[in-house]
Amino acid sequence: MKPLALSPEDIAALGRRAEAMLEELAAISAEPERLVRLYLTPEYRRAADLIAQWMQEAGLDVFEDELGNVRGRIGKPPYLLLGSHFDTVLDAGRYDGPLGIVAPILAVDAFSRAKQEPPCGIDVVAFGDEEGSRFPSTLSTSAGVAGKFDAKQLDLKDKDGITYAEALKAYGKDAGKISSAAIPASEAAGYLEMHIEQGPVLETAGEPLGVVTAIAGQTRLQMTLTGEAGHAGTVPMNLRKDALAGAAEITLLAEKVAAEFKKNSMVATVGRMEVSPGAINIIPGVVRFTLDLRSASDESRNRAIEQFERQAKEIAARRHLGYAADVIHRIATTPCHEKMQARLAEAIKAVGANPLKLTSGAGHDGIMMSAICPIVMLFVRCRGGVSHNPAEYASPADMGVAIAAFIRFIEQFKPDLKS
Amino acid sequence: MKPLALSPEDIAALGRRAEAMLEELAAISAEPERLVRLYLTPEYRRAADLIAQWMQEAGLDVFEDELGNVRGRIGKPPYLLLGSHFDTVLDAGRYDGPLGIVAPILAVDAFSRAKQEPPCGIDVVAFGDEEGSRFPSTLSTSAGVAGKFDAKQLDLKDKDGITYAEALKAYGKDAGKISSAAIPASEAAGYLEMHIEQGPVLETAGEPLGVVTAIAGQTRLQMTLTGEAGHAGTVPMNLRKDALAGAAEITLLAEKVAAEFKKNSMVATVGRMEVSPGAINIIPGVVRFTLDLRSASDESRNRAIEQFERQAKEIAARRHLGYAADVIHRIATTPCHEKMQARLAEAIKAVGANPLKLTSGAGHDGIMMSAICPIVMLFVRCRGGVSHNPAEYASPADMGVAIAAFIRFIEQFKPDLKS
Repeated sequence: MKPLALSPEDIAALGRRAEAMLEELAAISAEPERLVRLYLTPEYRRAADLIAQWMQEAGLDVFEDELGNVRGRIGKPPYLLLGSHFDTVLDAGRYDGPLGIVAPILAVDAFSRAKQEPPCGIDVVAFGDEEGSRFPSTLSTSAGVAGKFDAKQLDLKDKDGITYAEALKAYGKDAGKISSAAIPASEAAGYLEMHIEQGPVLETAGEPLGVVTAIAGQTRLQMTLTGEAGHAGTVPMNLRKDALAGAAEITLLAEKVAAEFKKNSMVATVGRMEVSPGAINIIPGVVRFTLDLRSASDESRNRAIEQFERQAKEIAARRHLGYAADVIHRIATTPCHEKMQARLAEAIKAVGANPLKLTSGAGHDGIMMSAICPIVMLFVRCRGGVSHNPAEYASPADMGVAIAAFIRFIEQFKPDLKS
Repeated sequence: MKPLALSPEDIAALGRRAEAMLEELAAISAEPERLVRLYLTPEYRRAADLIAQWMQEAGLDVFEDELGNVRGRIGKPPYLLLGSHFDTVLDAGRYDGPLGIVAPILAVDAFSRAKQEPPCGIDVVAFGDEEGSRFPSTLSTSAGVAGKFDAKQLDLKDKDGITYAEALKAYGKDAGKISSAAIPASEAAGYLEMHIEQGPVLETAGEPLGVVTAIAGQTRLQMTLTGEAGHAGTVPMNLRKDALAGAAEITLLAEKVAAEFKKNSMVATVGRMEVSPGAINIIPGVVRFTLDLRSASDESRNRAIEQFERQAKEIAARRHLGYAADVIHRIATTPCHEKMQARLAEAIKAVGANPLKLTSGAGHDGIMMSAICPIVMLFVRCRGGVSHNPAEYASPADMGVAIAAFIRFIEQFKPDLKS
């Protein structure tokens, strides 16, 4: 089969169409002044309808599964799964999620316009609950498609006290039939997701596209240091048990540990810190703070956490502070499939770009999809590394090249990766 | 004149009487479950009446000035002023303030019981607004007695929106006559205040009583570090502008600076820290935090602040963070009068204790009183250095020895210190 003709003008036009579609989708929000589109809400319904319409126009057979994911298929199984999510964080940008839905629709549309069938079966999936913004859930809808839906999530409540199960029912779905959303592993040949990078690596390197080598594993700690509150004027320095001074030292320790494991793309963040009693003239007695540590390798992450905790305890002991820590979240690294990476890199080269390899520090639906098939992700450069923010931006030019690479990937795709 | 006979039993009895009076006063609160007695409230009125009754019983001539301070005099000017405050913080202990009112009443009472006049004129002052708990004021009632009342304080509002002026009127006072509360400098021979230490120095040294050499000066900074919020997973360590990591380094800098100026009794505290946006998976973009730095010497405090700010700016610059800081409070060191210190030390020795010299890290009414006369403070050991807390405690034995030292000080006092 001859590759689709893709002139520079065609590629630019793909980018502009993507931009127009993203703009149309971004107008569907619960609030007029900012983009808020939570799972299974009225605005989620309107967005699902628009996506379904686009899929139909591109020549896909559309259905909605029992989790409210919008699915569009063409060809026969096993399918190449292409997708991302259309729920948002509060005050979101327009690219995070929707770009990975719009891109495969435009790719399939390009085959339709050329009066060609894609050379492999395709299942475009628009996932519903990736951000966990409405319920405190984790990738629940891609878990459903992978046959891994955890029924405990049905009891989770949103801020108004509505459960996941109640929301599904109000949306016209039957929680008893969630298993029907699953695609059998035998019908899933691979999963490819396009997403903005959400970081500054591509921009700093001056490259538009990247191939993701792994979705980083994460460990999150909730820590508490307990010292002794006291008068800021009357307790001499050598008799203090200052919980904030200890937390400060441990915050710098997190940076130090990340630096030591730099070659594993390790990042460590203390994002939350609550100081009690929190008065200008009182020595802090208790500090609660968090660590979020991510790495491309589970082994390095586990070693780093062990080293961090050992040294944090030493700091606390030296300062006569109580130290307590709970692991509140732990997720393993999801490696991207070597051959999927190699083929995506070829597709990127085929459209004249240089495939930079990088780790995804953020979690994505691919984590769940990896349970049933090989996965890979295509990252698109975004301005300033900004995401989860109205200032989020990817240029039409970069999106056009990314969609062109998507088309080349589909053209070369063979469902032979599981052997 | 022969010194009053003070047997060990007499001294113990003085301590027990002080404890009983403090207990009676502590029962006068706005709330049944905790001690809250704010300036010019109904419970303040009841406490003022009880104090006035005690003063009368001890043989003092009682009056109330236009700021609601309760005053009791005996003898002729110039007066030795003896006092402390009876307003409280929220959820207060019973010693901070009232001990310095009960002690001179019991001392005067000891002379009365022995049918003696104290050898010098005495003005016992029960101040009303030391803690600044009701209005955001600073030592306003001792300022009034020193003739330094700042009329701007009359516009300050409490949490219900009532102004200081309105509260005075409701209490039956005339804000236009505040100047009448002032005692002329010519009538003030000296000021002595007994107070619990509010710190652990005496306890750690195993001494019941201390002579205060100076009330530490303070500088308070409100600082803001501005970096860039970002995704905890996707921004590599070397591209971050993490405001909390910067604040952590500056918090440890505060400790380092205090250690360098250790011989000036310097203490430095970062007591408040607000991290924004404050999510576990977001790199902190903005941190607001405070520094409270105190020292027995203005010169060392000013040098320390200069050094701190210079190095904090270097830290911020190295981390590509914006640094802004405002001095939100600055008060000079109040040295205690050398001869007052020496005489107080003698009085302490006379009752068999060892006068430990120490700095007061907390502010006290003596700061204002120093404008019109020489001052000194007598510190009493308190358990665990705890204050501003229901667990605040000084033993009857220590209070008894302290009151005995007070009596010896009065016996030896001469109004010759200003020459």
